Amino acid sequence: MKFCSACGHPVVQKIPQGDSRLRYVCESCETIHYQNPHIICGCLPTWQDKVLLCKRGIEPRYGLWTLPAGFMENLETTQEGAARETWEEAHAKVKIGELYCVFNIPQISQVYMMYRGEIIDGQFGVGEESIEAGLFDEESIPWDDLAFASIKRTLRYFFADRKLGHFPVRVEDLVHGSRD
Amino acid sequence: MKFCSACGHPVVQKIPQGDSRLRYVCESCETIHYQNPHIICGCLPTWQDKVLLCKRGIEPRYGLWTLPAGFMENLETTQEGAARETWEEAHAKVKIGELYCVFNIPQISQVYMMYRGEIIDGQFGVGEESIEAGLFDEESIPWDDLAFASIKRTLRYFFADRKLGHFPVRVEDLVHGSRD
Ligand SMILES: [Zn+2]
Ligand SMILES: [Zn+2]
Repeated sequence: MKFCSACGHPVVQKIPQGDSRLRYVCESCETIHYQNPHIICGCLPTWQDKVLLCKRGIEPRYGLWTLPAGFMENLETTQEGAARETWEEAHAKVKIGELYCVFNIPQISQVYMMYRGEIIDGQFGVGEESIEAGLFDEESIPWDDLAFASIKRTLRYFFADRKLGHFPVRVEDLVHGSRD
Repeated sequence: MKFCSACGHPVVQKIPQGDSRLRYVCESCETIHYQNPHIICGCLPTWQDKVLLCKRGIEPRYGLWTLPAGFMENLETTQEGAARETWEEAHAKVKIGELYCVFNIPQISQVYMMYRGEIIDGQFGVGEESIEAGLFDEESIPWDDLAFASIKRTLRYFFADRKLGHFPVRVEDLVHGSRD
């Protein structure tokens, strides 16, 4: 950030009065420009005993497999974000169920919120940012070609928890850059 | 947003190619300025059978009671945010426990993430943005003077769940402006 989005003047970095952190501050209009973490909403879409994955058609991690997930938008709920991403990336309509995994990735100021979801009618397709989509059972999941640690963890928990018949909410920290 | 924070040129609102939403876009340096929801991290700090509340010394809802909660900062986890807010608002050190309540407030693009926490040594004080703090049992909670619906819901669930001895994660949508 170099300029004030409110008035166009150059911003400076300083600790505002009563604050303890460096912020971008406009000394012309006195706006403090806070920067905060982003939420990634995602879904683990299931149909019968299988999970829907899509192969990424964009960077980063082009060509690797993922669960539908992306930046939450203003004016939506986390569940709506998860359903929207499932539609955009895999052209599947889902009935969003319970919150399942929450991952902090503090190094890049992101928080993942992954919901379980049931695919309605078993229909899916290939979204604009994907190059392939498919339903996988536990054995056929491309475990070595998953795009992000958040995705691998969610899938591992899912297949383990499904054997036990319940799905406690998982809250963990992840290291940015790892795929495990 | 009126000006590009990267180059200082005026921004326009338009739907970028491949997108479906209006964004602030700089036609000079081509930066798309996304705007996304904010996370509010909070804590339900307990000491023995009591809950720590603080009375707000700032607007909105000056003079009403709240659990420690505030905007998550970059480079922290949701748990670290909850602990930091508890320190800032009530000068209590807490051992953060499990995630307890997640509230969507889509109208203002906020997501609350409330953790349970145990106060270490039972010590607390009055933070800079508070004018009072205290430990309350269920009967003495100022139920009619709570600042936000998120706080009232969290407290109601807590006392009900405590009687049953387990604390499932609660995920709900709230209406902005309501205190219930
Ligand atoms: Zn300014
Ligand atoms: Zn620009």
